[in-house]
Amino acid sequence: MRTALLQSSGRPGSVGENLKVLDAAAGRAAAAGAALLAAPEMFLTGYAIGDDIGRLAEPADGDSADAIADIAARHGLAIAYGYPERDGGSDGTGGTVFNSAQLISAQGDRLANYRKTHLFGRFERDHFTPGGQPVVQAELDGLTVGLMICYDVEFPENVRAHALAGTDLLVVPTAQMHPFQFVAEAMIPVRAFENQMYVAYVNRVGQEGEFDFVGLSALAGPDGVARTRAGRGEELVLADVDPAFLAASREANPYLRDRRPGLYGSLA
Amino acid sequence: MRTALLQSSGRPGSVGENLKVLDAAAGRAAAAGAALLAAPEMFLTGYAIGDDIGRLAEPADGDSADAIADIAARHGLAIAYGYPERDGGSDGTGGTVFNSAQLISAQGDRLANYRKTHLFGRFERDHFTPGGQPVVQAELDGLTVGLMICYDVEFPENVRAHALAGTDLLVVPTAQMHPFQFVAEAMIPVRAFENQMYVAYVNRVGQEGEFDFVGLSALAGPDGVARTRAGRGEELVLADVDPAFLAASREANPYLRDRRPGLYGSLA
Repeated sequence: MRTALLQSSGRPGSVGENLKVLDAAAGRAAAAGAALLAAPEMFLTGYAIGDDIGRLAEPADGDSADAIADIAARHGLAIAYGYPERDGGSDGTGGTVFNSAQLISAQGDRLANYRKTHLFGRFERDHFTPGGQPVVQAELDGLTVGLMICYDVEFPENVRAHALAGTDLLVVPTAQMHPFQFVAEAMIPVRAFENQMYVAYVNRVGQEGEFDFVGLSALAGPDGVARTRAGRGEELVLADVDPAFLAASREANPYLRDRRPGLYGSLA
Repeated sequence: MRTALLQSSGRPGSVGENLKVLDAAAGRAAAAGAALLAAPEMFLTGYAIGDDIGRLAEPADGDSADAIADIAARHGLAIAYGYPERDGGSDGTGGTVFNSAQLISAQGDRLANYRKTHLFGRFERDHFTPGGQPVVQAELDGLTVGLMICYDVEFPENVRAHALAGTDLLVVPTAQMHPFQFVAEAMIPVRAFENQMYVAYVNRVGQEGEFDFVGLSALAGPDGVARTRAGRGEELVLADVDPAFLAASREANPYLRDRRPGLYGSLA
C-alpha cells in the first residue's frame, strides 16, 4: 500500500488554508499511486495556536471531518490527520478537548478516531484531556492500521500494545521539536523493528511559536530500515507498505513469540 | 565510574585461557582507571562449544568464580562476565544449566548472579533452561547496576522493568551475531534514552562455529549517545558513567513520570 507523508505545518490558525494544503497534497499523492495520505499532529488547525485550540476544536464528525471526507473521496485515497477534538459542548465551547487523529477511508467513511493518551509538556496538559483508549485500529486495504500521536510512540509500551493487537502499519502524526530529533532518526526505526510492523511518522516543520519542529518524517519497515526519510522542509514523501515483506519478516523474527508476559508484571 | 568493555571471544572451549585473557584485560582496565570490567556472554567457556556447555558449566560459587574473584581483588576492580551456570548436580553433570552473568566486586565478593530469561534460537534452547527472575541488581560505587544478557535487551519490556526498579547502569554481556548489528548500533542507544539509564553492551567477535559475532560493543548514555563504540575486532574500550549527568538527564526527561501503567495491561 503506497503511503504518502505530508510533512508540513500548513498555516497555523487557519483551518480553511490547511484544508486547501491537504486537498492539494491528496491530489499529488493520489497521482503518485498512494492509497493513504498521512498529515501531522494538529494539522487541521496548527499546533502552537494557544487558546485557539479550544475555539477551533471540532467533533470527530464535525464540518472539517466532512470536508476531509470529501477530499478523500474526490481523490480516492484514505487520509489520516491530526486535529483538536471537542467531545460534547457546542460551537467552540464546553465539553472535553482531546488531541486526536482520525482516519477517513477513500470512500469518505470515518474509520477510526484516536485520542492522544500521553500528553507532552505543560502546553499540551494545559489544553487537552488525555485519551483513555491505548489501541485504536481500522482495516485498510487488507492491513490493520493503528493510530498514535507523537509522544505516545516514545513509550515502548504503547507500540508493543499495538503489535500484540495485530497492527501492521502504525500511523503517527507528530509535532516533534528540537532537540528531540533522536526520536525521529533512531527511535522510529527501532520501534518498527522490535515490534515487526511498519511505522509512518509524519512531522511538522519550522518555527511555530516557541517550538522548532524538525521534520525528518519517515516510513520505517520491520527490518528497521526507513523506506523514505524527509528532510527539514515542507515535503511530500512516499513509500510502500509491503504485506508480503511484513509477513516474511515476522516469520523470520520471533520477538512476539519469544516474549514472556509472566515476567512483565511490573510494567502495568 | 569508569567502565571497561572487553570485546573478545577469548579461546572458545578453554576456561584456563579465558581466565588469562580476563586477567590481562583487568590489569589494563585497572591501569586506565576503570572500576568495572565487563566481558561478553559465555566469556568463561566460549559460546559455540556445543555439548561442552554442559561439561564446563559451574556453580555460581564454583572454581572459576573463585578465580575471577581473585583477579578482581588483585586488580582492584569489579568484574561482570558471562558463563554457563550449573545449579544442582555435580562435577559436570546433572542439575539445571543456565546462561548466566555474574558481577563480582573489587573486593572479590559475588554481588549478583543473573540467569538469562529470554533464550535465543534453537542452540540456546537446546542447552539452557531460561531463568525466572527478570530484574537482578547490585549496588556498585553508589550506582545501581543491573544485569541482562544479549537477546534479553531486545525486549523493551525487560529494560523498562530495570528502569522501574531503579537501574542506573545496565550491563549486558552479549553474543550478537550477523545480521543483527542493528541491535548494537541502533537499539542499544534507544534503550538507554527511552529508559534514562546507561547501557553497557559488550560483545564477542569473529567466527565461532556457525556464528559470526559482530563486535560493536558500546556504552550508551541516557541521551542516546554512545560514549564509546568498538569496531569489529578484539578490543578493550573504556568510557565513564556519570551519576550527575544521569540525574540531570532524568530531571529533564519525564518518560518514567509520564507513563500510564493503567493502559499497559495487555503487555503482561
